[in-house]
Amino acid sequence: MSAGAESPEELAGRVCKGDPGAVARALNLVDDRRSERRAEALDLLDALEGRARGRRIGITGAPGAGKSTLLDALATALRARGRTVGILAVDPSSRKTGGALLGDRFRMGSSARDAGVFFRSLAARDQLGGLSEVAGASLDVLAAAFDSVFIETVGVGQSEASIADFVETLVFVAQPAAGDLLQFMKAGILEWPDVFFVNKSDLEGLAARTATELRAGLGLGRSSGGHGKAGEEASDRPPVLCGSARDGVGIDALIDALDAHHATLDRSGEGIRRQQASRIARIEGALARRYGSFGLARLFSARPLADFVAEDPTCSAERLIDRLGARFEADFSPKSGA
Amino acid sequence: MSAGAESPEELAGRVCKGDPGAVARALNLVDDRRSERRAEALDLLDALEGRARGRRIGITGAPGAGKSTLLDALATALRARGRTVGILAVDPSSRKTGGALLGDRFRMGSSARDAGVFFRSLAARDQLGGLSEVAGASLDVLAAAFDSVFIETVGVGQSEASIADFVETLVFVAQPAAGDLLQFMKAGILEWPDVFFVNKSDLEGLAARTATELRAGLGLGRSSGGHGKAGEEASDRPPVLCGSARDGVGIDALIDALDAHHATLDRSGEGIRRQQASRIARIEGALARRYGSFGLARLFSARPLADFVAEDPTCSAERLIDRLGARFEADFSPKSGA
Repeated sequence: MSAGAESPEELAGRVCKGDPGAVARALNLVDDRRSERRAEALDLLDALEGRARGRRIGITGAPGAGKSTLLDALATALRARGRTVGILAVDPSSRKTGGALLGDRFRMGSSARDAGVFFRSLAARDQLGGLSEVAGASLDVLAAAFDSVFIETVGVGQSEASIADFVETLVFVAQPAAGDLLQFMKAGILEWPDVFFVNKSDLEGLAARTATELRAGLGLGRSSGGHGKAGEEASDRPPVLCGSARDGVGIDALIDALDAHHATLDRSGEGIRRQQASRIARIEGALARRYGSFGLARLFSARPLADFVAEDPTCSAERLIDRLGARFEADFSPKSGA
Repeated sequence: MSAGAESPEELAGRVCKGDPGAVARALNLVDDRRSERRAEALDLLDALEGRARGRRIGITGAPGAGKSTLLDALATALRARGRTVGILAVDPSSRKTGGALLGDRFRMGSSARDAGVFFRSLAARDQLGGLSEVAGASLDVLAAAFDSVFIETVGVGQSEASIADFVETLVFVAQPAAGDLLQFMKAGILEWPDVFFVNKSDLEGLAARTATELRAGLGLGRSSGGHGKAGEEASDRPPVLCGSARDGVGIDALIDALDAHHATLDRSGEGIRRQQASRIARIEGALARRYGSFGLARLFSARPLADFVAEDPTCSAERLIDRLGARFEADFSPKSGA
């Protein structure tokens, strides 16, 4: 079982069986900065393409809202239902130290010692956009291995829009009294989430009031059913639940809401549309970070990105990113000396 | 006083006199997307270069922390000290509508009707990084016109790092009980701010506890005096103040802390270093959005950006961005048909 003797295809097979050691090796591989490992990583991701079994769920909210505690409670409750869980936490990087501020040791309580729960934290790496460059590929690995895959990011406002590109379902964790409706609207929070969870319902009355304000805001603030995309479910407003992650209150209701959302996605065909839109947004985001708005305009002036994506339905998103990048760079011929 | 008859130099002269109409025209000009207006905007910014009289102060914090209320109170208190105030608020854009979610009408109370207080809101425009592309140029205009210039952004974590590139002083507005120390650390908040203001001190006891936690965290969580840069003031920890923006409590102490910070910057020479670093970071950020990491590597493989900046000390940051961009694009010759 040495990593060196293992082909990307063999590694993919083990990942799909949910082998934690294989998942860890696969995550290390897709996070490897060395160019000689890149080809191997792309082979792995191609081999995993189309084999995802896990639902991708984003958990976002302000610092202190209780996201980590909620994830711990969700993991425990999902294990009780016999499902395996993969969790990716994106920590803001320190510009000074260049690494994630906090490691895994600060996170996750009871569920962390269960082999059916896999946890990995990623540094956001001081890049534009904040989400780690390898978050997409890491989620591809986890979704091949586990039934429920969560990505947790700290953030309000802009970050919801960016995490929405990586998940099927976005959960916003609100804290009671964190602000009135106007504050939520100002932060641009109402548009993206599919499910709202007002945590800390033990704070008497405040959670219920916050939930009421959120529901009112959802009636005013958005025209579609969530995730920023209109669909046939357009008139449905996303559920706003109350609970306490610390005391395990409302966790089963949250899982039921997630399941219901997935069932709706499957039934309406919105799930497929979302996956395609998400694939395009993820490729576009990666190319924008590497080649900027100028590069995007050059790459897709004649043919839109959607055409390239439709042309190669079986190769991984990361492969497409590399292929399109190589195309752009081949067109770039420095004329000046430097 | 028709805008058409006014040269960029004339407009710059009026901006420097604090003429609100001229400031509004100048802000419209630097925000103009039409290429034929770009040359005029660059002439204006060149004419304003080196004529800044205002201090640039960033105000950041989670939604609901009370940033807008605090700005209103600060503006009122600064006017009472005879200073003029310019405020730039960056609203998260809606991806759906393409505009700022909220206009000026939702913001600012008493101070907004005073001619010595100028307010403008900018849409963040769905770009990587979240901060508006024109925020830097808009601040250049405001800093030429007013004594105290504030930029307000919603955000936690990553956004502090990006706003730090645009200001001399960064204020983080915390709300009591928004989270414990670990939450602040997880969000990466402790590294950047120069001054902390724990708002809503009317919440009995909580504000004081939050301030104590922040002070403890600052002892642990950072090695330098603020703004992410080490200096001779390295052993100084940034002040953590308590107050209530709504009730006007602690506002004078906050202004005194800002003044003290500016005096320290001037005395130590750190202010000049920070301005230079900020200029470089702002140019780099703009070029990264346009040309990506690939473009940056190509542009600065032989000579670092700092050299280009040092070479042209009298031209505006925006002019340098355009000049370096033109250099990159000139090197780009598409070989393939598309």
